[in-house]
Amino acid sequence: MVKYPLGIQNKKRTVTHKNRGMSLESLINKTNLYYLENDIAVVYKKPTPIKIIKVNNSENTIKSAVFSKHSTTDYNGIYNGKYLDFEAKSTNSKTSFPIKNFQDCQLDHFHRIIKQKGLAFVIFYFNELDEYYFLTVDWLFNCLKNNEKSSIPLSFIKEKGFKIPLTLNPPLDYIKIVDMFFLK
Amino acid sequence: MVKYPLGIQNKKRTVTHKNRGMSLESLINKTNLYYLENDIAVVYKKPTPIKIIKVNNSENTIKSAVFSKHSTTDYNGIYNGKYLDFEAKSTNSKTSFPIKNFQDCQLDHFHRIIKQKGLAFVIFYFNELDEYYFLTVDWLFNCLKNNEKSSIPLSFIKEKGFKIPLTLNPPLDYIKIVDMFFLK
Repeated sequence: MVKYPLGIQNKKRTVTHKNRGMSLESLINKTNLYYLENDIAVVYKKPTPIKIIKVNNSENTIKSAVFSKHSTTDYNGIYNGKYLDFEAKSTNSKTSFPIKNFQDCQLDHFHRIIKQKGLAFVIFYFNELDEYYFLTVDWLFNCLKNNEKSSIPLSFIKEKGFKIPLTLNPPLDYIKIVDMFFLK
Repeated sequence: MVKYPLGIQNKKRTVTHKNRGMSLESLINKTNLYYLENDIAVVYKKPTPIKIIKVNNSENTIKSAVFSKHSTTDYNGIYNGKYLDFEAKSTNSKTSFPIKNFQDCQLDHFHRIIKQKGLAFVIFYFNELDEYYFLTVDWLFNCLKNNEKSSIPLSFIKEKGFKIPLTLNPPLDYIKIVDMFFLK
């Protein structure tokens, strides 16, 4: 059963306002925390990998380091026995999502996850439209295969994916959509 | 089909020597790389989380940071549709594994993973004995519940778990044991 904090049921009119202006990452982290606290799913953002250049051993502190890149995606976890793997991406475009925003190693990683029968998807945020979308990686690859363009049209995302409404808590209830697309 | 590098089949006598002296983490990373390259499983070590104190924005480099701790386990991934989650731990003891080597948040995480029907286990390395063991988290919790002691006896691990032989490549073939314990 999904539990809501006390009194939320009576405040439906303000449902989206509270989460507006939060970054995509914050919304997803808040959603994941909700899933964790309510035993719905266990999903974490992987820490950003860092290449350490200099350590002070006596203090056990880092004196110099650079950010490096994931060779995978940002989020993974488990939902009802199923392995989940996804990436969350934003764009300023109002009409399409540029492919170059995916690194090749992220796409390779998605290929591997699909081979292993994982549930792989992308959450897109079109920030000029203030709209969130869910697209399975199967459809992402389908679009890339049949499309010589350098971007995924929003119309394709709308047709094959699903708009994620912004709600109070959890703010971006993507598990509901995972149910619809993968587990129905 | 498991693929071996050319010529390995004829070198069985030297099978364990090459990997001796490697750290537990290196052995597992090498094993995971083997699984990845041979499409057997996709498992990564999570990057060590770091709390950043000072950043040089113009260079995008970190000038001061401290190591922080995972609230989860070190390794997770997917094997044939199943979510895997495990921790790898070493001890100098020859007779038992001290419970205090697990953080409470790691045990909480394991509880959550089991609730979500994930495959959760521990790889123990008894470095004085140079022996590796696999124990499911179900048996780990079973031992903690029925045991007022502060450690898990090696005899228990031997009885309920499985000794992982050190082999050439992959060096610690834990997936074979996952098959035996969870998926047979």
